[in-house]
Amino acid sequence: MFKKVSIIGFGLIGSSIAREIRKYKLSKIISACDISQSAQKIIKSLRLVNEVTSDVKTSVKNADLVFICSPLSTYKQIFLAINKSANKDVIITDVGSSKLNVVQLAEKILSKNLCFVPGHPIAGTEESGPKSGFLSLFKNRWFIITPSKLTKKIQKIKIEKIWKKFGSKVTSMSAQSHDNIMAITSHIPHLIAYNIVGTASKLEEKIKSEVIKFSASGFRDFTRIASSDPTMWRDIVISNKKQILFMLKKFNKDLKNLEMAIRNENKNKLFTIFKNTRNIRKKIIQTGQDTKVPNFGRKN
Amino acid sequence: MFKKVSIIGFGLIGSSIAREIRKYKLSKIISACDISQSAQKIIKSLRLVNEVTSDVKTSVKNADLVFICSPLSTYKQIFLAINKSANKDVIITDVGSSKLNVVQLAEKILSKNLCFVPGHPIAGTEESGPKSGFLSLFKNRWFIITPSKLTKKIQKIKIEKIWKKFGSKVTSMSAQSHDNIMAITSHIPHLIAYNIVGTASKLEEKIKSEVIKFSASGFRDFTRIASSDPTMWRDIVISNKKQILFMLKKFNKDLKNLEMAIRNENKNKLFTIFKNTRNIRKKIIQTGQDTKVPNFGRKN
Repeated sequence: MFKKVSIIGFGLIGSSIAREIRKYKLSKIISACDISQSAQKIIKSLRLVNEVTSDVKTSVKNADLVFICSPLSTYKQIFLAINKSANKDVIITDVGSSKLNVVQLAEKILSKNLCFVPGHPIAGTEESGPKSGFLSLFKNRWFIITPSKLTKKIQKIKIEKIWKKFGSKVTSMSAQSHDNIMAITSHIPHLIAYNIVGTASKLEEKIKSEVIKFSASGFRDFTRIASSDPTMWRDIVISNKKQILFMLKKFNKDLKNLEMAIRNENKNKLFTIFKNTRNIRKKIIQTGQDTKVPNFGRKN
Repeated sequence: MFKKVSIIGFGLIGSSIAREIRKYKLSKIISACDISQSAQKIIKSLRLVNEVTSDVKTSVKNADLVFICSPLSTYKQIFLAINKSANKDVIITDVGSSKLNVVQLAEKILSKNLCFVPGHPIAGTEESGPKSGFLSLFKNRWFIITPSKLTKKIQKIKIEKIWKKFGSKVTSMSAQSHDNIMAITSHIPHLIAYNIVGTASKLEEKIKSEVIKFSASGFRDFTRIASSDPTMWRDIVISNKKQILFMLKKFNKDLKNLEMAIRNENKNKLFTIFKNTRNIRKKIIQTGQDTKVPNFGRKN
């Protein structure tokens, strides 16, 4: 049981963490820190936390656990505020989607006597803001810890226990491995989705309204991902730039190859490309990473 | 009420049509035609139809309504068989995902005294085969008619009535417009999905298993679409090649632009690109073309 948990950035993930902490009574006090005034109003109305503030120093004061759940571009200022105001025995953790940059920044900026356990829950929806969070968001999902030089063993175990309490499966890997994997499983899919929805949104008005009308033919799947929080995604692609550009190169090479097969009406090649991708879906369903119900269970 | 309906190609769409025809008692006899022996066995066990055959001529004999629901590459042989065996007063219709090629082929090959009403239901799932069909697949979805020179008005109205009975909204447009719209709403999304899943499946074994494990971060959405029937999609991309290559050019140009913004860490540009795509999602939900529940309503 903690005395005070500070949650910095109270959106989908931050507010879901608060809900879990309340449910399992993991802390006497929960402090929510968010710079958005409209978010602060909503947070107060939700009655999930004991303190609502826009000031990181106020929120982390006397906290023994800090979750950083804000966009990656805010980390530097948050680390500096933590240095000034936090207790020395505090456990600092985060949920950022890119890790090597975060680890390097923490090692550079955070006071050497502080403990930081970098983490990333592989969970979320396309929604954002304090209202979008919910209990069970992390259930059966992975939580990845990417230890840094500031990660102490006992505190790492404490963070693992918390996420297991939330229902997550916990694993550890290097920040570099995390960023490699996320480039292909998350960052490129989001980029591609943003890009195709962007291409469609630049078509003439007449065809654009038809795109919406007939979106059930595939397009609508992409619009879900492409409606994720723009600030968060701006920061992610900059933070994991190197890996993303590397994977994008592979993607572009494959797309050129596919384009050539279409141009040449190469039936065998097209059939092989379209057939080989079925196996991955099967494995994803087998391992419980997606529903087996057709159309994700959508009714139409 | 029809005397005999012939359904050629008894997969997801064909078998769903059979289910609707039975439900609304639209025909005395339903004949299913499928070249796959394993499909034929399943069709017999489903007890949805009165006749199961691999021969198009047998199936269309004495039919007053024919639904072509097989891959586009089979159309030529089917049209030739219809010429030989069908009654003159038969209504021929189809559900192919590409229309200009189909219209041109029909006008070239089908006997001039036959009536053909080209159509396309904007409905489906990632599954295929006779078992994957179900009642209500077409409910609240669009059915597009793209009239050809062989489309007679009275028969077009009959086809419209049938699809309205199935619960669809019916609209008409030129085959060319249909193909333009489908290139961006369906064909490019499928290609992109196939491509990214393909890129992932070519990674080294170690990272590939991690991709499956952490696929809930975006990637799994793409694997659904990329598990669609490979034969069908091979034929679609060849059939609508011109429009697809045209849209792919736009997509590639936008992706280059996005890549450059990442390379230059152009925060404003990235934020604008990621923000503008939210509106299309909102409109798709407003017009009832997708569920508003986060994560498509998936539980995790």
